[in-house]
Amino acid sequence: MTEPDASPRSRRHGGRDAKRAQRLAQVATSVPFITRKIPSFEVLGEEGLSLIEQNADTVLQEIGIDFKGDPEVLEIWKKAGAEVQGERVRFPRGMCREIIRKSSPAQYTQHARNPERNVVIGGKNVVFAPNYGSPFVRDLDRGRRYGTIEDFQNFVKLTYSTPYLHHSGGTVCEPVDLPVNKRHFDMVYAHMRYSDKPFMGSVTHPERAQDTVEMSRILFGANWIDPETGRPRTVTTSLINANSPLTWDATMLGALKVYARNNQATLVTPFILAGAMSPVTSAGTCTVTLAEAMSGIALTQLLNPGAPAILGSFASSLSMQSGAPTFGTPEPALVLYTMAALARRLNLPFRSGGSLCASKVADAQAAYESANTMIPTCLGGVNFVLHTAGWLEGGLSIGYEKFVMDLDQAGMCHALLAGVDTSENGQAMDAIREVGPGKHFLGCDHTQRNFETAFARAPLSDNNSVEQWEAEGSLDMAQRANATWKKMLKEYVDPGLDPAIDEALLDYMARRKGSFPDSNV
Amino acid sequence: MTEPDASPRSRRHGGRDAKRAQRLAQVATSVPFITRKIPSFEVLGEEGLSLIEQNADTVLQEIGIDFKGDPEVLEIWKKAGAEVQGERVRFPRGMCREIIRKSSPAQYTQHARNPERNVVIGGKNVVFAPNYGSPFVRDLDRGRRYGTIEDFQNFVKLTYSTPYLHHSGGTVCEPVDLPVNKRHFDMVYAHMRYSDKPFMGSVTHPERAQDTVEMSRILFGANWIDPETGRPRTVTTSLINANSPLTWDATMLGALKVYARNNQATLVTPFILAGAMSPVTSAGTCTVTLAEAMSGIALTQLLNPGAPAILGSFASSLSMQSGAPTFGTPEPALVLYTMAALARRLNLPFRSGGSLCASKVADAQAAYESANTMIPTCLGGVNFVLHTAGWLEGGLSIGYEKFVMDLDQAGMCHALLAGVDTSENGQAMDAIREVGPGKHFLGCDHTQRNFETAFARAPLSDNNSVEQWEAEGSLDMAQRANATWKKMLKEYVDPGLDPAIDEALLDYMARRKGSFPDSNV
Repeated sequence: MTEPDASPRSRRHGGRDAKRAQRLAQVATSVPFITRKIPSFEVLGEEGLSLIEQNADTVLQEIGIDFKGDPEVLEIWKKAGAEVQGERVRFPRGMCREIIRKSSPAQYTQHARNPERNVVIGGKNVVFAPNYGSPFVRDLDRGRRYGTIEDFQNFVKLTYSTPYLHHSGGTVCEPVDLPVNKRHFDMVYAHMRYSDKPFMGSVTHPERAQDTVEMSRILFGANWIDPETGRPRTVTTSLINANSPLTWDATMLGALKVYARNNQATLVTPFILAGAMSPVTSAGTCTVTLAEAMSGIALTQLLNPGAPAILGSFASSLSMQSGAPTFGTPEPALVLYTMAALARRLNLPFRSGGSLCASKVADAQAAYESANTMIPTCLGGVNFVLHTAGWLEGGLSIGYEKFVMDLDQAGMCHALLAGVDTSENGQAMDAIREVGPGKHFLGCDHTQRNFETAFARAPLSDNNSVEQWEAEGSLDMAQRANATWKKMLKEYVDPGLDPAIDEALLDYMARRKGSFPDSNV
Repeated sequence: MTEPDASPRSRRHGGRDAKRAQRLAQVATSVPFITRKIPSFEVLGEEGLSLIEQNADTVLQEIGIDFKGDPEVLEIWKKAGAEVQGERVRFPRGMCREIIRKSSPAQYTQHARNPERNVVIGGKNVVFAPNYGSPFVRDLDRGRRYGTIEDFQNFVKLTYSTPYLHHSGGTVCEPVDLPVNKRHFDMVYAHMRYSDKPFMGSVTHPERAQDTVEMSRILFGANWIDPETGRPRTVTTSLINANSPLTWDATMLGALKVYARNNQATLVTPFILAGAMSPVTSAGTCTVTLAEAMSGIALTQLLNPGAPAILGSFASSLSMQSGAPTFGTPEPALVLYTMAALARRLNLPFRSGGSLCASKVADAQAAYESANTMIPTCLGGVNFVLHTAGWLEGGLSIGYEKFVMDLDQAGMCHALLAGVDTSENGQAMDAIREVGPGKHFLGCDHTQRNFETAFARAPLSDNNSVEQWEAEGSLDMAQRANATWKKMLKEYVDPGLDPAIDEALLDYMARRKGSFPDSNV
C-alpha cells in the first residue's frame, strides 16, 4: 500500500515477456538530429531580458572590447563605424545587434560527407556533439593518463557508433603524443576517415584553420562549392572562445577570420568562470557573455555577411572557497536559460551545456553534475551541445566509462524532447477501457502494439532486484560501463572512404607536415 | 584557449581567500519552505491539457472507479449523485471537478509544534520531505539490512538537522524490528520527539490514523483547535495511495476518512508504474492519474468540505525488458510536468517527484536518475516533494550516504528556484565597469561584497585538483558522504519537548500498546 510495496508485484507480472526483450535491445532511435517538440523553458521575462540587453549595449558602448594583436580587425571595426583607441573597440549603441540582425543566419545546414548525416543547427533543432579539449583520458583499467591519437580515434569511432551523438565534435581529447604544431592534421583526418558525421576544425592557429579548410575542400571535392550560391558549403563548425572578460586574442581572431571568410561556421563562445571572468551574479555573467558574443558574431558578419555563427555561452561558477571551477550548480543553469532566451531574441543558433562535471571519476558526483547541466541544456533550447559525452574533471579529462554513461542519458534526451504524444494512440483510451479497474495493462492490445517503442531506455541502468544485481557481481554503473565501450569499439564498422580522397588527404598532410619542423609550442 | 585551459589559471587566482573559506562553510540557507521565483515549466499547451481532462472525465463517467470494502463511502457517493453498481462508482461528467473546485483549498498551512517550522503547501511554495516507505536501509559500513527504529530515529534526526528539508516526512524507513500493528506509535512519536518540523501520519489502518490524530491532539494541546474556525488545525499531511488502476482499497479509504474528518491533510496519490497500472504512454498515464486523484480528493471534500488535500502523482515507467520499475527516464518527467499543470488548473497543491532511482547503491546511476527526477520536480512546480533524500532501489532501500548526497542537491534547488536576481547588485554593472577587459573579478568591490552568499554550494562535491583529490585518498562521493552523515548524527541537537507532553505521549502509547496483542499482520 505504501509506495515501494507496489514494485515487487509488477516485477512478477513483467518478467514473462523475456523473449521479446532480446529484440528490444536492438531498437534505437536514429535521427540525424533532434527537432524539439516541447517548449523552451525561460526563467526571466521580457523586463529582465531587456535589462540585460541594455546593459550589454552599455558595456559595448562605454567599456568596449579589446581585440588583441590584429590590426586588420581594428581597421574593419573602424570602417564599420566603431570607435577604436589602441586595441580597445567601443561600439555605438545597438551597432553589433544591427549588424547581426542584418545577415547572421537563424539556422544553417552543416554538411557531412554522408548527406544523411547533415545537421541543421538553429531553430527547434538540437545537435549533440562529444567532449572537447581534454588533455587527459581516464578509464577504469589504466586510470588517468595523457590522451593519445589512438584515444582520439577511439572517441571518434565511439561517437560514430552511437545513434545519440549527431556530430563528431572536434578536439575530443588532445593527442599529446603528437607535436603541438602538427596534431591538428591527424585530428581532422581522424574525423574525416573514421566517421561520416559532421565535425569541427582546428582553431589553435590561423594556419591550422586554413589546413582544416583545405582538407575539407579535398574531402568534399565537387560538393565543396554550392552551385546555387557559388560559395563554399558550410562543412565545419569551429569553436572560437573569447578571452573573457571582454577580450579577443590574436589566435582566436585569426581562426575566426579564416572560417568566416570561407563560409564556415563559428561557435562564438565566451568561456566564463563566473567570479573570475565575470561578476559573481547570473545577470552580470549574462551581460558580459552577451556583449562578448555579439562583438564576435558581428565581426563574422563584417568579414562575410551570411557566414553562419552560433552564439555560445559556457559558464561555470567559481568555488568561493578554493577558487576552483564548479559544475552542476544552479547559477550556470540560470545563465543557460537566460542566454538561450537572449539568443532567440537575436534570432541566432545557441550553444551551451553538456554533461559537465568537476568529478575526477564517473561517480555520483559526476552524474549529479552532468544531469544538472544536461537537463537545462535540453529544456533551455540549446541548438548545439558540445561536451554531451565524456567530460570529467572540469574538462581536463575525458572518461571512457563516463562517455558511454552520458550516451545513455543523451539517448533519453531524445524522448524528453519529443514531448507528450497526444495522438489517439498516445491517449490510449482503448487501453484504459479494455483493462478497467484493478487489472493490469501488461497484456492489453495497446501495450502489445506499443511494446517495442514504449519508454526510453538507459541500458547501463540496472533495474533488477538486489538479489540479481548481487548475483551479477554487485557492479556499479561505471564498472558496467567498462564493458560497454570496449564492446562498442570492437563492433565499430568503418564507414569507408573513397580511396582517392583518402590518398589526397594523406598526401596533403604529408606535404604540409614536411614543410616545417615539429614543435611543441 | 580551448575551454579546459582556462581552469588552472583561475585556480591559481582563487586559492588566496582560504581564510574566509572557513567562515563560508557555516553559511546556509535556512527557510521554513521555498517560495519559487521562477516560472513553472509546462510541456503541453491548452489543447493537450484540456484533452487529458476530457479523457479523465470520460474515464470517471464511463468506466468509473472501484471503492473496495467500504459501504459507507459508497453511500456517500450515492447521496452525492454518483451512480453506484456494486463497488463501482461512476460519476456524472464534471462532478468530481465541481466538488473539488467548491471547497478544496488551493493552499494550506501545516502547523508544526515549533510555529517557525510551519509550512504553507500550495501556490508558489515548495516543501521538501525525506524518503518514505523503505523496508531496507543501506550504508557503506553495514551494507543492506532491514530498517530498525534506531534507523528511523536517525533519519528523523538527520532531517531535523538539515536546513534543506522542511518537513520531517512519515515512514522514512520501516522499523522492521517492531511489530507491524504497533510500530506506528514509535514512528509518530519519533517525529514528535526528535524533531519540531511538521510530519506525516500513519495510513496502514484506520485505527492507526486515529492514533496519529490522538497523539497530535496531545502534542498540540491548547493549539489543537483553531479558535477562529473551531476546527482542528492541520498538523499532519498523510499519504493516501490509490490501488491503481482505478481502485481505492478499504485501508486507504479508512485512513482518508479519519484524516479528512479531523481536518488533517491527505496526499491523494495514484502510485503508477506505467505499463502495468496505466497505459505505456504519458498521456494515458496522466488520464488515469487525474481520474483517480480527482475521485479521491472529491471524496475528502464530501467528508469534510475544506479539508486540505494534495493532488499527488507518482509515475515510473516499467522496463519492457524485465518488468521492473525504472526511474530517471524521460516519460515520468513528462508526466510530472503535465500533472503539475493539471493540478494548477484544478487549483490544488501538487505532489510529485523526489530523488528517485533504481540503483542499489549511491553510484552514478543513482545520481543521474535522482537528478533526472529532482530537476523536473523543481521546474514543474511541485509543492510537496516526498522522497527528496535517501531513496535507493526503487524505494526498497533508504541509503545513509545517498541521503546526505541528496541533501546537497536539495540545497542547490533553493538557489535554482530563487531565479536570476535583476536588482542593481544582481546586474553588477559596477563590477564590470571597475574590472574592464582582460582583468579578473576576484578582487573587485562587488565580489568582496557578495563573497559569502555568491553561488550555491554542494559540500560533498570535490572541485579540487586531481593531485589534491588523490592526496586525500581518491574517495568517490559516496565515500565522502559516509563521514558526513556520521558527523551530522553526532552533532544533532535535540529540539527539546515539554516533559509533560512527552509523558502524556508515552502514557498514551503505553496504554494503547497494552490494549491489544502484538501482531505482524
